[in-house]
Amino acid sequence: MTELAAVKAALKTQAVETPSWAYGNSGTRFKVFAQQGVPRTPQEKLADAAQVHALTGVAPTVALHIPWDRVDDYAALAKYAQDHGVKLGAINSNTFQDDDYKLGSICHPDPGVRRKALDHLLECVDIMDATGSRDLKLWFADGTNYPGQDDLRARQDRLTQALAQVYQRLGDGQRMLLEYKFFEPAFYATDVPDWGTAYAHCLKLGEKAQVVVDTGHHAPGTNIEFIVATLLRENKLGGFDFNSRFYADDDLMVGAADPFQLFRIMYEVVRGGGYTSDIAFMLDQCHNIEAKIPAIIRSVMNVQEATAKALLVDTEALGTAQRTGDVLEANAVLMDAYNTDVRPLLAEVREEMGLDPDPIAAYRRSGWAQKIIEERVGGQQAGWGA
Amino acid sequence: MTELAAVKAALKTQAVETPSWAYGNSGTRFKVFAQQGVPRTPQEKLADAAQVHALTGVAPTVALHIPWDRVDDYAALAKYAQDHGVKLGAINSNTFQDDDYKLGSICHPDPGVRRKALDHLLECVDIMDATGSRDLKLWFADGTNYPGQDDLRARQDRLTQALAQVYQRLGDGQRMLLEYKFFEPAFYATDVPDWGTAYAHCLKLGEKAQVVVDTGHHAPGTNIEFIVATLLRENKLGGFDFNSRFYADDDLMVGAADPFQLFRIMYEVVRGGGYTSDIAFMLDQCHNIEAKIPAIIRSVMNVQEATAKALLVDTEALGTAQRTGDVLEANAVLMDAYNTDVRPLLAEVREEMGLDPDPIAAYRRSGWAQKIIEERVGGQQAGWGA
Amino acid sequence: MTELAAVKAALKTQAVETPSWAYGNSGTRFKVFAQQGVPRTPQEKLADAAQVHALTGVAPTVALHIPWDRVDDYAALAKYAQDHGVKLGAINSNTFQDDDYKLGSICHPDPGVRRKALDHLLECVDIMDATGSRDLKLWFADGTNYPGQDDLRARQDRLTQALAQVYQRLGDGQRMLLEYKFFEPAFYATDVPDWGTAYAHCLKLGEKAQVVVDTGHHAPGTNIEFIVATLLRENKLGGFDFNSRFYADDDLMVGAADPFQLFRIMYEVVRGGGYTSDIAFMLDQCHNIEAKIPAIIRSVMNVQEATAKALLVDTEALGTAQRTGDVLEANAVLMDAYNTDVRPLLAEVREEMGLDPDPIAAYRRSGWAQKIIEERVGGQQAGWGA
Amino acid sequence: MTELAAVKAALKTQAVETPSWAYGNSGTRFKVFAQQGVPRTPQEKLADAAQVHALTGVAPTVALHIPWDRVDDYAALAKYAQDHGVKLGAINSNTFQDDDYKLGSICHPDPGVRRKALDHLLECVDIMDATGSRDLKLWFADGTNYPGQDDLRARQDRLTQALAQVYQRLGDGQRMLLEYKFFEPAFYATDVPDWGTAYAHCLKLGEKAQVVVDTGHHAPGTNIEFIVATLLRENKLGGFDFNSRFYADDDLMVGAADPFQLFRIMYEVVRGGGYTSDIAFMLDQCHNIEAKIPAIIRSVMNVQEATAKALLVDTEALGTAQRTGDVLEANAVLMDAYNTDVRPLLAEVREEMGLDPDPIAAYRRSGWAQKIIEERVGGQQAGWGA
Repeated sequence: MTELAAVKAALKTQAVETPSWAYGNSGTRFKVFAQQGVPRTPQEKLADAAQVHALTGVAPTVALHIPWDRVDDYAALAKYAQDHGVKLGAINSNTFQDDDYKLGSICHPDPGVRRKALDHLLECVDIMDATGSRDLKLWFADGTNYPGQDDLRARQDRLTQALAQVYQRLGDGQRMLLEYKFFEPAFYATDVPDWGTAYAHCLKLGEKAQVVVDTGHHAPGTNIEFIVATLLRENKLGGFDFNSRFYADDDLMVGAADPFQLFRIMYEVVRGGGYTSDIAFMLDQCHNIEAKIPAIIRSVMNVQEATAKALLVDTEALGTAQRTGDVLEANAVLMDAYNTDVRPLLAEVREEMGLDPDPIAAYRRSGWAQKIIEERVGGQQAGWGA
Repeated sequence: MTELAAVKAALKTQAVETPSWAYGNSGTRFKVFAQQGVPRTPQEKLADAAQVHALTGVAPTVALHIPWDRVDDYAALAKYAQDHGVKLGAINSNTFQDDDYKLGSICHPDPGVRRKALDHLLECVDIMDATGSRDLKLWFADGTNYPGQDDLRARQDRLTQALAQVYQRLGDGQRMLLEYKFFEPAFYATDVPDWGTAYAHCLKLGEKAQVVVDTGHHAPGTNIEFIVATLLRENKLGGFDFNSRFYADDDLMVGAADPFQLFRIMYEVVRGGGYTSDIAFMLDQCHNIEAKIPAIIRSVMNVQEATAKALLVDTEALGTAQRTGDVLEANAVLMDAYNTDVRPLLAEVREEMGLDPDPIAAYRRSGWAQKIIEERVGGQQAGWGA
Repeated sequence: MTELAAVKAALKTQAVETPSWAYGNSGTRFKVFAQQGVPRTPQEKLADAAQVHALTGVAPTVALHIPWDRVDDYAALAKYAQDHGVKLGAINSNTFQDDDYKLGSICHPDPGVRRKALDHLLECVDIMDATGSRDLKLWFADGTNYPGQDDLRARQDRLTQALAQVYQRLGDGQRMLLEYKFFEPAFYATDVPDWGTAYAHCLKLGEKAQVVVDTGHHAPGTNIEFIVATLLRENKLGGFDFNSRFYADDDLMVGAADPFQLFRIMYEVVRGGGYTSDIAFMLDQCHNIEAKIPAIIRSVMNVQEATAKALLVDTEALGTAQRTGDVLEANAVLMDAYNTDVRPLLAEVREEMGLDPDPIAAYRRSGWAQKIIEERVGGQQAGWGA
Repeated sequence: MTELAAVKAALKTQAVETPSWAYGNSGTRFKVFAQQGVPRTPQEKLADAAQVHALTGVAPTVALHIPWDRVDDYAALAKYAQDHGVKLGAINSNTFQDDDYKLGSICHPDPGVRRKALDHLLECVDIMDATGSRDLKLWFADGTNYPGQDDLRARQDRLTQALAQVYQRLGDGQRMLLEYKFFEPAFYATDVPDWGTAYAHCLKLGEKAQVVVDTGHHAPGTNIEFIVATLLRENKLGGFDFNSRFYADDDLMVGAADPFQLFRIMYEVVRGGGYTSDIAFMLDQCHNIEAKIPAIIRSVMNVQEATAKALLVDTEALGTAQRTGDVLEANAVLMDAYNTDVRPLLAEVREEMGLDPDPIAAYRRSGWAQKIIEERVGGQQAGWGA
């Protein structure tokens, strides 16, 4: 197989998981702008996600969020997904939207609240059993807003305890993906604020516990690809929550704010063997003002483009330049791949996969946008609170 | 008058404006946690604000937010306030919560939306006429989330045009306070992102247009007191929106995150003559997880403490050290004031004003918290959307 | 002329000024690593700069730094440059490397130091008269390290006074370009810390005073293209100091850290009419670890590539999408230009200009690197202190 | 013992290590301003440090930096220190100032350079044997400036290998303190950029490897006290390099930029048992523009004041408020300690220790400053390169 053929083959096996909640409404604390045609049920979210996969060919699974996607019969939901050409992916817990969680969930000073949160996490594993999901993705809004508000260290003790109980509950082939976040909604101290904290917890828990990197959850200036390389080296990278940002956790389309950074991240993934491993590549975005389905298609395509460029890096030339300390040449080799216009290559890949070379145009022609606007009338549109 | 007497006299004339919306519920995009006893009407907000003034003696006015505080009869509302011992303060406009404002208000590409937003601003001046308010405080959520989304420069042209029309509408003794913000809810470009932009617009508008500094609206690391000193020097500082933050626009209690910064800001206010001028000292905070009224009392006290320290700076010794280039001594003179425990002094000031020396304890004893929990049952609690 | 022909024509007229000091040694506070072949005299710097221009065709001028490039006969230096195919560009002042400037230069509390600094600035205008330079570029390291160290406002008064005196000295066709910087070497307050401060000073000085944007001199997250658009709209953008950074004022090769940002900046330049105006496009970089001449060639090429992409934006399609509020399409139009591989186009442009299509390869083949290593033996290598 | 007596007793046992290099000249990449009276030899640095200890009573040890403090006879140097009333403290390595280290030291792509750097580290342990020092403090400037310049992961492998060899060389009672730094002098990727990386390495090395927290080495907004609490909980906090900053690694006097942060850090130290453990409390500062010895005295006093406040926190009241979720009261309890003016208490402590209550005034009266200016004439002043 030629090198280009290998690149194409790799691109055809790519899998980006889209999140059910990105198809619903979202916004900032100032306003959630509702959009026409937004899904009202988990099934309608899956139907939208199926469109994304049908058009891109590389978005085969859909992450669920509990309780937003709570249904009576998860096996039926899984069947529904399959009938539409997709599968259910990671189960995301929610321990931040109940009134009891004002001061935290599994780190809360009150044992009763902690128990309630833990029960929810365990319920999520039950759901995984029903859906066949591999990954439990845990993000905790836990933290404090004011110095002194709570004991930073005691909160870590409570976190350790709860995570251990969830970990014990995991079955064979199930994993716990622990997400960290720099800040928001906690404004003084967040209980899992950085990769170091997530790593330290996962290390003690065991092999099934892995760190998930949300690309919007870092301090300004943080070198994210370094973290990716480090976690891969430590066998502790479980997955990504892709999105992009200029400021904080802006949750813009991945690749929209800094496409060069996304390329550098994907280069470290490829270099570190993460592309062919069990790492989950998920989107986690908020399409506050743009149309949701085409935004998600665009996001998937942005990941593809960054991946294609990463796969095109001339690693032999790069290694030679690096070993000889030729700073400019090593940088040039990397930039050469980045500066390549990979859109024609990806159009070819799509055609070889039996897809339209231009998924956005195909979506426009499909009439799906009009269809859902016409059909999804009445009911309660999905959003973060629904 | 001795120096200490002068400091006390200055502290007794202090005036901090509290915002009606801080008495209502607030939160993050993740969750608004409702609190018991929260006001349901503008009148109930004023009643709470009156408690803060009664206990601190230095919170005589209350800022309104339109439409959150819209009433049929603003004169009656002003009378209501007066009967409770406070006055109505600045009128704050809102051009971010209507579905039409998804892509902006007065900077929106659609002239129809711009007209609607402008009409709202003009209505706010009508309200000022009725309430006798001096200040129209303008904060615009306008901006874009994606590069290319709109023309940055055309948006400035639209902004210029709308501001000019509002400015023309201002009556004698009325001012326009233009607020800038680094980011949020716009995540790529904000139309008034920094003091320079606000300053440039105000300069062209004229004397009645002034810049307002929200202490949470800056890029990381920004030296806010430098901006305060500069705007005072240019006669363009119209007021403050006080709050504090560790990360972004966290809207924590002023002085909670960096009390030393608050002191430095108040020192530049005093040094620049701003303390005795027409500058509006307003709070703009979100008490997401803490009890609202005592949080506002605490915030007013934090401003008082920072002001007391600023007033205690030995300016003569400071000037001598500065002129002779004695870096350590000049810093030490400033720190000497900062390190002073001014709480006993403020307790004295309060007693001389006929107040309880400990406003927080007095609030607890007052029974107000219990009273409003019992009485404010049913109805719709006030919040950002109400 | 077809559109592509127009783009090519524009690219052929591009002019990037390279700084004499970038050919010399530089480093961090930890270490300056000397490189072989580094110039020892202003003449040798010009000879290196002439290579860059000969190979790229778009680097026709060289900025000087006084006293680093002080010579007895500036007319002779200008003649030397001309003989080598380049011209002398902006004169850069230096009021930070004399022991007297420990606490500042024109903002220093001591009038004697201020006078000395002012005299240096006036001397720089004398030099401009001799070299025929249009631009005096002023960057002041002035500021304070500790709160209280000096009076922030008095320093602005001193700044105003000195700038006015320099402004008065400017001849016809001469300009003053005032540079701002977020921090470093001052670590508490910098006297010209942001574009707003530089703008306010330039506005009062008059038409010949313009702001210069150093792309590395902003707070984290600052939207630089917004500043560029705003200054262009105000007719106050005088020029750029191009470089790139991941953290602070890293002074890396322009386009190396965030090529998408450079494209966005160049797009605002083109959109705002800055490309065909008197704006000075200068590099200001430190090649601490990489070979200097090829790094500068690469930097010039990076500016070219960003410019080519900016010129390729389909402004008609963009305007339509913007006016109709089509967020995704507007963003896509911009990204379409950015994602284009413009290297073939630039290779054509170079061939049409009679140049090698690959300046880096041509430099390697030229033997210049070997030649200067062999010839420049002995003497004192140029650097920031020489 | 009353509580206050216990606080006083704790304060009397405090030990802050001052760094030999802080007595010498330092600066930014723009300029090192020389000061009169600066030491020229390790002995003179120790003599200055002895003054600081004599006046404060809590600065008993002095950190050395190799090769800046290289002497022929370290035992004699230790004796010299003892004769002056101080002891030698941590040994700091230097693998960043040799021309060979342009692209790194123990992470360099060239095995020869790595070997040279490793030999230096081993030499430092030899010196520890001679001086009786407990701690080897390792800070690596290693990193890259450009994406692609070197292989991020291979550099970690090299780091692992070298650290293991140094660790093996450590004797009984000796420790390795690994320092992390966000950036500078590397401007793209630093090889030990955050506490997570340092922690992961130390964990694998073993008990004798601990993390050192330099308070200036974090991304903007990082909650440092969280890291302190976490490392203490993990038994991996080895020490501090104290300094303060507004922007990057400004190396200002500790407590000068954010005294509240220093208090929060010291509170976590006390709460986590770090105050009475083997943690090394070191200064690492650059007194670029202020007089060095009084700046160091002031820094030691700032640490004392923060510690005193931390010790005064009413932990019982705090715990009650935290457990009951009383956000405002918990914060108030912490702030109550912070707002206390502890200077009178510390004056008492000093008097009980037989010291002058005002170390700065005592230093002024001592005549030391004049003495060293007169005596230290000629020779080469100490600085980062000497």
